[in-house]
Amino acid sequence: MHMLRNDYSEGAAPQILQALVDTNAEQCVGYTEGDPHCERARKLIREACGLLEDEADVEFCVGGTSANVIALSGMLRDWEGVICTPDAHIVVHETGALAATGRTPLPTRDADGFLSPAEAERVWRFQTSTGRHMTRPAAVYVTDTTEVGGVWTRERLDAICDWAHGHGLTVFLDGARLASALTSSENDLTLEHIAHTVDAFYLGGTKNGMLFGEAMVIRDPRLREAFPYLQKERGGLMAKGRLLGVQFEAALDPANADQGGEVPYWRLARHANALAGQLRDGLVALGYEPYGHSASNQQFFAVTPEQQAAFEQAVGCETFYVLDDGRRVVRFVTSWASEEQDVLDLLALAKRVA
Amino acid sequence: MHMLRNDYSEGAAPQILQALVDTNAEQCVGYTEGDPHCERARKLIREACGLLEDEADVEFCVGGTSANVIALSGMLRDWEGVICTPDAHIVVHETGALAATGRTPLPTRDADGFLSPAEAERVWRFQTSTGRHMTRPAAVYVTDTTEVGGVWTRERLDAICDWAHGHGLTVFLDGARLASALTSSENDLTLEHIAHTVDAFYLGGTKNGMLFGEAMVIRDPRLREAFPYLQKERGGLMAKGRLLGVQFEAALDPANADQGGEVPYWRLARHANALAGQLRDGLVALGYEPYGHSASNQQFFAVTPEQQAAFEQAVGCETFYVLDDGRRVVRFVTSWASEEQDVLDLLALAKRVA
Amino acid sequence: MHMLRNDYSEGAAPQILQALVDTNAEQCVGYTEGDPHCERARKLIREACGLLEDEADVEFCVGGTSANVIALSGMLRDWEGVICTPDAHIVVHETGALAATGRTPLPTRDADGFLSPAEAERVWRFQTSTGRHMTRPAAVYVTDTTEVGGVWTRERLDAICDWAHGHGLTVFLDGARLASALTSSENDLTLEHIAHTVDAFYLGGTKNGMLFGEAMVIRDPRLREAFPYLQKERGGLMAKGRLLGVQFEAALDPANADQGGEVPYWRLARHANALAGQLRDGLVALGYEPYGHSASNQQFFAVTPEQQAAFEQAVGCETFYVLDDGRRVVRFVTSWASEEQDVLDLLALAKRVA
Amino acid sequence: MHMLRNDYSEGAAPQILQALVDTNAEQCVGYTEGDPHCERARKLIREACGLLEDEADVEFCVGGTSANVIALSGMLRDWEGVICTPDAHIVVHETGALAATGRTPLPTRDADGFLSPAEAERVWRFQTSTGRHMTRPAAVYVTDTTEVGGVWTRERLDAICDWAHGHGLTVFLDGARLASALTSSENDLTLEHIAHTVDAFYLGGTKNGMLFGEAMVIRDPRLREAFPYLQKERGGLMAKGRLLGVQFEAALDPANADQGGEVPYWRLARHANALAGQLRDGLVALGYEPYGHSASNQQFFAVTPEQQAAFEQAVGCETFYVLDDGRRVVRFVTSWASEEQDVLDLLALAKRVA
Repeated sequence: MHMLRNDYSEGAAPQILQALVDTNAEQCVGYTEGDPHCERARKLIREACGLLEDEADVEFCVGGTSANVIALSGMLRDWEGVICTPDAHIVVHETGALAATGRTPLPTRDADGFLSPAEAERVWRFQTSTGRHMTRPAAVYVTDTTEVGGVWTRERLDAICDWAHGHGLTVFLDGARLASALTSSENDLTLEHIAHTVDAFYLGGTKNGMLFGEAMVIRDPRLREAFPYLQKERGGLMAKGRLLGVQFEAALDPANADQGGEVPYWRLARHANALAGQLRDGLVALGYEPYGHSASNQQFFAVTPEQQAAFEQAVGCETFYVLDDGRRVVRFVTSWASEEQDVLDLLALAKRVA
Repeated sequence: MHMLRNDYSEGAAPQILQALVDTNAEQCVGYTEGDPHCERARKLIREACGLLEDEADVEFCVGGTSANVIALSGMLRDWEGVICTPDAHIVVHETGALAATGRTPLPTRDADGFLSPAEAERVWRFQTSTGRHMTRPAAVYVTDTTEVGGVWTRERLDAICDWAHGHGLTVFLDGARLASALTSSENDLTLEHIAHTVDAFYLGGTKNGMLFGEAMVIRDPRLREAFPYLQKERGGLMAKGRLLGVQFEAALDPANADQGGEVPYWRLARHANALAGQLRDGLVALGYEPYGHSASNQQFFAVTPEQQAAFEQAVGCETFYVLDDGRRVVRFVTSWASEEQDVLDLLALAKRVA
Repeated sequence: MHMLRNDYSEGAAPQILQALVDTNAEQCVGYTEGDPHCERARKLIREACGLLEDEADVEFCVGGTSANVIALSGMLRDWEGVICTPDAHIVVHETGALAATGRTPLPTRDADGFLSPAEAERVWRFQTSTGRHMTRPAAVYVTDTTEVGGVWTRERLDAICDWAHGHGLTVFLDGARLASALTSSENDLTLEHIAHTVDAFYLGGTKNGMLFGEAMVIRDPRLREAFPYLQKERGGLMAKGRLLGVQFEAALDPANADQGGEVPYWRLARHANALAGQLRDGLVALGYEPYGHSASNQQFFAVTPEQQAAFEQAVGCETFYVLDDGRRVVRFVTSWASEEQDVLDLLALAKRVA
Repeated sequence: MHMLRNDYSEGAAPQILQALVDTNAEQCVGYTEGDPHCERARKLIREACGLLEDEADVEFCVGGTSANVIALSGMLRDWEGVICTPDAHIVVHETGALAATGRTPLPTRDADGFLSPAEAERVWRFQTSTGRHMTRPAAVYVTDTTEVGGVWTRERLDAICDWAHGHGLTVFLDGARLASALTSSENDLTLEHIAHTVDAFYLGGTKNGMLFGEAMVIRDPRLREAFPYLQKERGGLMAKGRLLGVQFEAALDPANADQGGEVPYWRLARHANALAGQLRDGLVALGYEPYGHSASNQQFFAVTPEQQAAFEQAVGCETFYVLDDGRRVVRFVTSWASEEQDVLDLLALAKRVA
């Protein structure tokens, strides 16, 4: 039985690993600077986004924290800050990596993982109330899916982007799990729409079947200029840059599409989502209570301590919160490597300890 | 014919790539925090260093710049600096990554790539001459092999370490090409001696047959405490940390040793050195003039512009300097992937354009 | 009629200005490094704190933000953070100055300006729940008086200090208005107790009759070592350092004491507090509603927009919040330069617009 | 006898001190944000520079290091550096304050304190030779007078500015001793020319008769936008900002001009220069050897250890270098407060120990 602990427990999906093996002996220039794989991956990503070469840069990062730091420190000047939810990855899970570049996250009070224009407006008004004496908001940070598995709708995303652009702020979308979002049953966004709406975002690879890697799509002029230098300065430039190109090329290559024409990047995420949905429906049918609402590959449930212990032992799920009534909020995460039998086994266990 | 452009042109050496394939389906905890491969690699490295678990930490970085930044920002306080040669990687090739953490490199005037006690002493005296008004030196940074391929002797290394420790400074050794150094014909150092003499160093993987990765050995108490946090804060912590463990495990596993008992980590470097030596001897025999002295896998030669053009076209070698007489200093780099025929082909070309 | 806008509207109190004039022609060494005035001021401050020379350093800063940044960046390592209230000066009013050094403020939900052990404990638990993945709390920041004029009691201060020290955190007290706090009718703390309880704090001068200047008392060993260098590195070291010494010397010199034996530093603050109390009592008697509770030189009242306009025109008071019912929270600030007639005039106006 | 140790040994020149006394009781808004003295000083400075209000901002800093850090961190982006001489104040005397903002000084090999286009070009070529892998030069830093008392000519300044602007770099001029430079017998520059040639510079006050303060004139658009925020974020914003306005107003007020129409700002510096010239000529006449060439208020001489001891005891001069022949380079500094008798006394001593 596989763990359902997280979506970065394994190595790479088979097609992606194979591409690394197949290209291993090639000699390439380093640093993502012109090798054929990075160039082809850039082309495939631009095409998927409906962007021309002069409209956007595509760059490759080794991981999510590094991507967030490079992007936000390039979009913000020293004294500027980024409005985000209080549970944002950049606030909670990155050991102050953004502050280490002198930039400040400015959390709202949004409790559901979605950044709202009303809360952004409140923070904006407060932070601009005494001019130079306060960190000035200059960007907003959103994540699709959210930290708790939420899927952004087009209406929601357009609303926060309209608000931001109306106030002269840029929008950065952390897409560590964007593939899960865009293949969710509740999604009504397209990659093309996102690419034309936000100012920079990335297509996550680490949590969607690659060994590592995130592909950043940058329309923001300031970040386009800054990125190459900041990536090196922040320690995020990989010598064997081709590894990033090879993986994204394999994930997006039409030659790797299935019969329905879907390339691995989406297929892997769709698979994970399907199993997560099956898991959620099964648990709900058994009377378990979901915590929040997720239609993506992370599922949160409020369970008793005994159930938590049983689930953790079986599938390594993590405990996120302890509720006031003593129950635990646990998280199950499916991935491209999860199998239906894993879900069935978990549901069988859940039935026993219900 | 292979390029002799650099030692990070290919993917991974076969044994190492195979280990990644073999372990791909395993589920591991992330972030190098306790998966069996990282743990075993740590053990193998400690053993090779003759260090007990409580004497040193072993941590894994994704690349050299990231490793240098994390280590030095952990060894130095905000107002402290690191004495190094003027051609040091941290001065010249890292886009101010160290300064981006607020720490300052303090270059000497050493012209040969080796940091000398006399120059270190000069910088130390100057930088401490007005107390709080100057960046205070608190560490020294050395590289084995040096930027220009030089191999440190035990006498040299002991001298700078004695000087540093005598002045209360710590020593960091950048080992991006340490495998090449320790398998050089001119080496008289042992890994064990280095590990017991410097305060922190790393065993380079990226330039010695791995996809990426450097293994940091840390005895310095301040850095031991800082490293886990700084690695995350500086964006250098890999989610699928096991990839680093798997590669170092494969490179150092006695099960992968050859008949002479040598594990891949040293065998790959010895191979590169042998070919580099053959290349150097062949060029010298043809009348070419070496630039500086290298007994490692980088070889520098002063050639005419026509020769430079011919060599660059053939093997992609880089041009480092233009001399006053118009000649170019080119660099040939061999790696685990280079073959004897590559050297023979280059020598044939060199004979034609001599 | 004087403005009651803030306590840094004028120059210096007469005794302090006179001392600057009297010593103007003296030649002194610079940078607070050994001139007789800084040395004597250090001695007077240590005596007032009941601290021996080897127990604490006394250093002089040009202003509050500079003092906060130097102190906290010296008490915290790169990845560490400081627990504080959400309205803390370092969070709200310093344009991210602390983040600019890479350190992170970690706000609680305390709504009254006093940092509580319960909230500090909640933040601590959260921030240490995933180890290296989060900013680690290493200090707490408190202000006496608080941002909204609150005066710390000994019980409260001991409680948060006990909590902090019990968890291995240090305590920094921002004393920009400490003179007002310690001369408040509600104060039960002594300078000596504070000096022996917190790890570093400062005696504010800018808001208590000096042209500028804050005197930092440092027991924390890490900050003692860091301070001289950080002060220069953060741009906070004054060339004519004697100006700081001269002012604190004059403010604390027994030769300047009144008949009751009180030196200017306390007398000036006591004067401001007395007038603030008279103002508060007068307004309350007229039916005005205080906002929060202050027994110090800042007084907050909830008033109608018409009253706000009248008060602002008359005494320049600032508006801090707009309440849900449309009322404004305005702040009146008295200082050493305020006079009883100013209060009487304001009360007369308040009666007219009541 | 006055010390000739430095030009910040005393308080303020009488006219300036008097202005502080005269305005002490006025109530002003804080932070240099609109009080009448700052506004008038801004106007006087713009007029002296021949700049219209929309052409340049005038801002006030508390000291030189703070001014340098704010200006350069506002002119440079994170990965950019500033070309300067190796003896530049920002390299040698500021404890890495610029690096603490992540920006990197890029020293040339100019040995005489003047930044030359040839050396700037060499550094530029080197630093742009590998693109993103190196700190990119984006500004140059010059000081008038230089660290060793040199006075820039118009030809020299135009040459480096032309070079910089021709390469897309901006120019920052550190004017800590600009008054001494512009009143030097060897000066052929005008304030107006400087103001229209460099992109930002400051008029030093600390070393020219003020208690503290430097007035920054900013034409660079990036710095104009950044300055207000960076000044607060870097801890360099003074609460009682009017103190800066009052002093510069007094120094530049035509009402304070002498019979020849010269305002104190220039008169004070001219006085110091005259005495320094008398000192230099007298020492040379006695056979003492100048070190370098200065026509400003700092004079350097190479003397024997015995002479050094005698001079230090008499006038507190500092020793800057020890020459290979054992002689010491000492520095004499005159100021607005020096008197002719001081020079005569020193010359008498010099005659005795010659």
